[in-house]
Amino acid sequence: MDIRIDRGSSVPLYLQISGGIKALILSGKVPDGFRLPPERKLAQALGVNRTTILNAYRELKSDGLVDARVGRGTEVVPRSPAPEAAAAMGPFPWRQMVREGAAREPDPLVRDLLALTERRDVIGLSVGLPAPELIPLAALGKIQQALMDEKGAEALLHSPTEGITPLRETLCRHMLPRGIRAVPEEILVTSGSQQGLDLFIRTFLAPDDVVVVEEPSYFGALECFRAARVRLVGVPTDGHGMRTDVLEAVLARQRPRLIYTLPTFQNPSGLVMGSDRRRRLLELAHRHQVPVLEDDPYSDLRYEGDPLPSLKALDGAGHVIHLSSFSKVLFPGLRLGWMVAPKSVVRRLALVKQMVDLHSNTHGQWVLQRFLEEGHFAAHLERVRKGYAARLAAMAEALEAEAPADFQWTRPQGGFYVWCRYPEAVSPALLMAKAAEERVAFLPGGASFVEDPGANHLRLNFTYAPEDLIREGVRRLMRALAAARRERGSAPRAVVGTPPIV
Amino acid sequence: MDIRIDRGSSVPLYLQISGGIKALILSGKVPDGFRLPPERKLAQALGVNRTTILNAYRELKSDGLVDARVGRGTEVVPRSPAPEAAAAMGPFPWRQMVREGAAREPDPLVRDLLALTERRDVIGLSVGLPAPELIPLAALGKIQQALMDEKGAEALLHSPTEGITPLRETLCRHMLPRGIRAVPEEILVTSGSQQGLDLFIRTFLAPDDVVVVEEPSYFGALECFRAARVRLVGVPTDGHGMRTDVLEAVLARQRPRLIYTLPTFQNPSGLVMGSDRRRRLLELAHRHQVPVLEDDPYSDLRYEGDPLPSLKALDGAGHVIHLSSFSKVLFPGLRLGWMVAPKSVVRRLALVKQMVDLHSNTHGQWVLQRFLEEGHFAAHLERVRKGYAARLAAMAEALEAEAPADFQWTRPQGGFYVWCRYPEAVSPALLMAKAAEERVAFLPGGASFVEDPGANHLRLNFTYAPEDLIREGVRRLMRALAAARRERGSAPRAVVGTPPIV
Repeated sequence: MDIRIDRGSSVPLYLQISGGIKALILSGKVPDGFRLPPERKLAQALGVNRTTILNAYRELKSDGLVDARVGRGTEVVPRSPAPEAAAAMGPFPWRQMVREGAAREPDPLVRDLLALTERRDVIGLSVGLPAPELIPLAALGKIQQALMDEKGAEALLHSPTEGITPLRETLCRHMLPRGIRAVPEEILVTSGSQQGLDLFIRTFLAPDDVVVVEEPSYFGALECFRAARVRLVGVPTDGHGMRTDVLEAVLARQRPRLIYTLPTFQNPSGLVMGSDRRRRLLELAHRHQVPVLEDDPYSDLRYEGDPLPSLKALDGAGHVIHLSSFSKVLFPGLRLGWMVAPKSVVRRLALVKQMVDLHSNTHGQWVLQRFLEEGHFAAHLERVRKGYAARLAAMAEALEAEAPADFQWTRPQGGFYVWCRYPEAVSPALLMAKAAEERVAFLPGGASFVEDPGANHLRLNFTYAPEDLIREGVRRLMRALAAARRERGSAPRAVVGTPPIV
Repeated sequence: MDIRIDRGSSVPLYLQISGGIKALILSGKVPDGFRLPPERKLAQALGVNRTTILNAYRELKSDGLVDARVGRGTEVVPRSPAPEAAAAMGPFPWRQMVREGAAREPDPLVRDLLALTERRDVIGLSVGLPAPELIPLAALGKIQQALMDEKGAEALLHSPTEGITPLRETLCRHMLPRGIRAVPEEILVTSGSQQGLDLFIRTFLAPDDVVVVEEPSYFGALECFRAARVRLVGVPTDGHGMRTDVLEAVLARQRPRLIYTLPTFQNPSGLVMGSDRRRRLLELAHRHQVPVLEDDPYSDLRYEGDPLPSLKALDGAGHVIHLSSFSKVLFPGLRLGWMVAPKSVVRRLALVKQMVDLHSNTHGQWVLQRFLEEGHFAAHLERVRKGYAARLAAMAEALEAEAPADFQWTRPQGGFYVWCRYPEAVSPALLMAKAAEERVAFLPGGASFVEDPGANHLRLNFTYAPEDLIREGVRRLMRALAAARRERGSAPRAVVGTPPIV
């Protein structure tokens, strides 16, 4: 048994020893029924008193982990076995009890990707994360301290489901640059904008409802919609965002229950929906009485060009629900986002949220409220904008230098992503495998489409990795592409027709 | 316009002034179209330079809140009006778009109660909260500081959906006193145990499924089940918990998909399910192949008597899912709980959680992990047990001294609540009204029952208020009861039969 003791520690020796054995038992490194060494022997081996071991074993016994019987020494108690009647029936069939559509197994390519990004030697251009180096730790530390001193227990107790009032007030001011004029009762604080999306779906959508999305769109949202068993209709995008001519035809024929859009620095394409398109989309939504869910986590992160008003800012009829988050600009780990909606909708969504998690984490809400209110946000935003603009420039330079002519990509004016397209002849699965060999990860494009015309796209993130790793990552990706292209010849040729299934 | 400026502040004067006006506009205290005072006049009134006001107005203009036109001065821009086409159709009919059963309006008695507990002069015996004075702020402050120093940004970034691994490991050790031997892969960290319940429902239950609950049961859970449109069957309880003879008949005839139980210091009754009942319940669950959801937020809080093994500890066949939380013992505001379930169930629930909120707040998970790992928990538990035992004793004394003979109550061995029963002749709504007059709040019992035989029960919390307020609260409640009883004579007599509806 591998037990380490530290004679300098303030933790009593017997507790160090019982703790060590406990860890071995719970991790399964010491099996059920294992006989612990006799007290005297272990005492000798560790160079401690026999009483110390006696106390350690007593501790383990009181935890129910070991049992001492005369003549058998001290044994690890097995995990409670199934009663006879239950054992005869075998374990409970949980898998067969799962409700239809409760959750989908992840796409195999996405699963491979997740395993890949866990590896430390891989350059992760696949993620949707801010730069850890740019997280404002100093300001945060001060705020936490001040909160403890001034608020005490209040910041750790329950808080209203809709969010703490000071944060709702602060968010109203925070949204002025987006052109949004909201009152606090129109704000719902959520546990990340992912929760906002989920609350909307639970409250307003039923299976088989039609939902319009951009093609491509945020794959996390597509997964939520699919789990809710709604019918997704993808409207193609061009350089100005969602094509409203196609949208108009879809509205007329499919009678959708929702238009879901990321108009600003879209995930995954980085696109911005133009002013005219924004107005036209709203006009169509008004005419067809379809609500619009505007997902807007990125609009603060503009590196060039002039900001456009959000859809919520242009909407005077209460059709638009605005969804946003601090996960891209500040602290993803706090899981805090918010929604802007008509008061009656906020009330309704809060009733659902009450059942989902009662309210969002109180302490995090106070931290954010102070961060915004004390004016740290403007300085922080300037810093990350500068940093990300430099990282984007590094990626663009590397792509210009390294990418072959038939590898297309668009340079965004803001956000997190560069969206790329590679020749259809290259298999996405093969490219992923080659990228894994080269130790670089990207997000495969297929998961972002409703139909599947986008398999030969990929999304590169330029905010998480520092500039030198971005350059190296792009070089690795291009080597992977070249390798996948070379191997294509040996791959079986694509079948052109659909063979009859007989 | 009421604007205050602070010449000692480090915030420039023009920003103080624009901030003040901004707050007035956003709160609606200054209406749309309002004409701001001419610059010179405001400068005079506030005793500042005209340039300062000029800069303040420029700031408001850049936020889009005001507009300056020659000859009209500076006016507050109205919130964007509906486009003509949309205005003609009226606001979007959100209410009519709500999905069936998405959420229920709260019971009117519960709503009145919530309004009542907001009042500062009311003694809140209705809540389910720990004592704010007993929250271990000092330890927490040190942990936060150490986290910033040692983990830095890591504690603020995304973390695995299942929970951070160190916390899952620590929780395994934490559950040994409950008799539970789990491995980390069997733990899912949740955003409060409320989320655990919600995840279970979404994953395993469909509308019209039958769910067995104790009668009475936790009203928050009943609300969740009702929103999922499952059919609730209440099994009565006696002094030893759920009556397994009735359960057996229900299992045979109704084929339920779940047994939901709070076996230890139940909410609202404070009851503990006896050892024999626990084994019998599991035996029935195994034989009928019905899963058991064991909701256990209170078992650490035992003030007398010996602990019993949890259902999860007794279950060898993987039928039991164990749900727990730190909200009753530590920090309700952090919203952190956990589930123990077979590995395959944890994987499945994590897929759903991924769509719901990606993961629980990373920072809070690290805080809890350190709190447990550094050994603060044992000392904290001893402190709250002592404190709550004293509060329970105060409530029991007050009830013995003040309650009339036909007011029955049971003294629990642990947990948060004393469960009471008053004469049926007293109307619950009238008692609530009288209690409001006396400035004391309790939880009416009706909401805790599936059928409605329990309207003349009420739940009193003894952990939140300090001892003197508990005593005073009981006195007020008894005055309210006496007043409700006196007024009964003048109330219309109850109708005995059901009148035909014609």
